[in-house]
Amino acid sequence: MTVVEPGTVAVIFTSVRASDVDDGYAQMAEQMVELAAHQPGFVGVQSVRDAGTGVGITVSYWADDQSARAWKNVAEHRIAQERGRAQWYADYSVVVAQVSRAYGRNG
Amino acid sequence: MTVVEPGTVAVIFTSVRASDVDDGYAQMAEQMVELAAHQPGFVGVQSVRDAGTGVGITVSYWADDQSARAWKNVAEHRIAQERGRAQWYADYSVVVAQVSRAYGRNG
Repeated sequence: MTVVEPGTVAVIFTSVRASDVDDGYAQMAEQMVELAAHQPGFVGVQSVRDAGTGVGITVSYWADDQSARAWKNVAEHRIAQERGRAQWYADYSVVVAQVSRAYGRNG
Repeated sequence: MTVVEPGTVAVIFTSVRASDVDDGYAQMAEQMVELAAHQPGFVGVQSVRDAGTGVGITVSYWADDQSARAWKNVAEHRIAQERGRAQWYADYSVVVAQVSRAYGRNG
């Protein structure tokens, strides 16, 4: 499991899906991960959704605050954000935080 | 959805369950959330696990770094950490990060 460096910027996106019908959400989510991975400063992403409750947490990691902000403004990502607000999510929150330390299984 | 204040400390715990058998894990996880909620400086917690892949993300929020560190050292929590390493998790990582900004659905 990737351990990130101090100074990395974590963007914690928590959301509740409005429904579990196939409304193009899964495809968009996959495309957004693909798109994020091609942005400058992208470090990594971890994403989990509980199919039962509809609650999901996605944490993306960025080299610095500038690249995290730039990702928010990428055109296609903005469209997904708009549609997310309008259709896909019953609720969501975004928390941006700077990594102070990290450790894995072996330390 | 709770939006946390800048300066709050986020502890991002990502893990992969070793198996999905009932080995006391679910009960422990519930107890840990209960225990965390009684610690000084506890702000909130969000936890999601994908039953299919076994991957889970738990983000707990703390008033400051001191309370986040204190939680790591709480006796019962240490026992869960030990058993986690030995039995429950195939892999895990912990990232500690300080919140710089946060926003929700309406801003």
